[in-house]
Amino acid sequence: MAGNTSKPGASVAGRILAVLDTFDSRHRSQRLSDIARRADIPLPTAHRLVRDLLAWGALTRSDSGAYQIGRRLWDLGLLAAVNTGLREIAEPFLHDIYAATLATVHIAVLDGPNALYLDRVAGHASVPVVSNVGTRLPLYSTGVGKVLLAHAPLELQQMVLADLKPVTPYTVVSPSRLRGELARVIHDGYAQTNEEMTLGACSIAVPVRDHSDQVIAALGMVTANLRRDKQASIGALQVAAQGIRRSMLSLSGRRT
Amino acid sequence: MAGNTSKPGASVAGRILAVLDTFDSRHRSQRLSDIARRADIPLPTAHRLVRDLLAWGALTRSDSGAYQIGRRLWDLGLLAAVNTGLREIAEPFLHDIYAATLATVHIAVLDGPNALYLDRVAGHASVPVVSNVGTRLPLYSTGVGKVLLAHAPLELQQMVLADLKPVTPYTVVSPSRLRGELARVIHDGYAQTNEEMTLGACSIAVPVRDHSDQVIAALGMVTANLRRDKQASIGALQVAAQGIRRSMLSLSGRRT
Repeated sequence: MAGNTSKPGASVAGRILAVLDTFDSRHRSQRLSDIARRADIPLPTAHRLVRDLLAWGALTRSDSGAYQIGRRLWDLGLLAAVNTGLREIAEPFLHDIYAATLATVHIAVLDGPNALYLDRVAGHASVPVVSNVGTRLPLYSTGVGKVLLAHAPLELQQMVLADLKPVTPYTVVSPSRLRGELARVIHDGYAQTNEEMTLGACSIAVPVRDHSDQVIAALGMVTANLRRDKQASIGALQVAAQGIRRSMLSLSGRRT
Repeated sequence: MAGNTSKPGASVAGRILAVLDTFDSRHRSQRLSDIARRADIPLPTAHRLVRDLLAWGALTRSDSGAYQIGRRLWDLGLLAAVNTGLREIAEPFLHDIYAATLATVHIAVLDGPNALYLDRVAGHASVPVVSNVGTRLPLYSTGVGKVLLAHAPLELQQMVLADLKPVTPYTVVSPSRLRGELARVIHDGYAQTNEEMTLGACSIAVPVRDHSDQVIAALGMVTANLRRDKQASIGALQVAAQGIRRSMLSLSGRRT
């Protein structure tokens, strides 16, 4: 994980980025020795870099003395294009759907062979799901993922279809069956999953398009049962997807 | 803004952090020359650092060639303690209140002389507000801020009371009147504002306490009118605040 392909050389800049690289969702809190080992740099160097990162606020120290990502990087991360554009426009629409259905609602974009979840709305009445903001999940086992995969370039589809692994006993791992499903997603205008990512959770998702009708994201809803209110759910998602498209158009000064 | 007090010396680490420091909510998208000028480093140095940051994904380039904060820093920022602890626990409670009231709901913590908004839930039916995730607003002109200020150390209260500036014509700028309000917040268990931050918006807020009854955050709701349903709003907020406290206790292995 640490110091992998993206490490930009052995410069000081490279080492400071290698230190930050040691933090991920399974390593949120680390001791100095862990950081040095995982970044593959000597302990005194790690100590010096961590001290600079602490002073700046990129890292913070917990009560136990372990290092964690600090408030300053959280502030900076919120400025990222991925956070400010589509996500901010979509947010109130997600809340509207949630208030109407109490289902978990989320929006995801294509990120290599994964669906990257930009935002998620869930209350205590919602079905528990694995996705969270920033989570990446397979394209073939999620509703939003199937929408994104159906509209993805052929090369990506082939790459994903060549490597289908069961997440649950219900995950579709037959390439020909999944290919049929993707064709249906294009034809019907929505995708669905039945306990293919999480047991007890089903999902419905629709594409979000931009002014040139390119699919730029997928809007999905997770419920315990698909049969009840399926058409109403699809309708709510499609109305919201249209609303997001119009908000993007009016923000960019265009008119529908 | 750039290269201010927190700049950790003129080391390479310091310069790379100074580059990141040039990005803020008013400078989300910058050209290389802007970055070099605002970071106070020579253009060739800025070019080299920006190249490393681009390669790693800390920065990204927009279609127009300007630099923006990249997806990798967004990923890292989501790992911050400020994002993973209280915010994750509080999130479903915020959605529950929103679904019940359709009011804008938010949670904030003390950050120096400001209230830092950790999360916010708002739909299209909500009153427009200025707060967003990561926003910092004055303690004396917001509902959540008054709760935090009422429970803050005396030194901070004195500092804030010595520097009251009107945000709207209704902002309380009399130290003695504000002192009276803070005493009432402690006595009544909630704070309120009437168009003191934004015209047309009123707010109600209650404290969130931890296992030792320390106030660690404030939970607030923004509505167009306080008179209607005020007691019901306070009740909903207090139930949620208790729920957040219990969730934190059970996560940390304690029992109420």
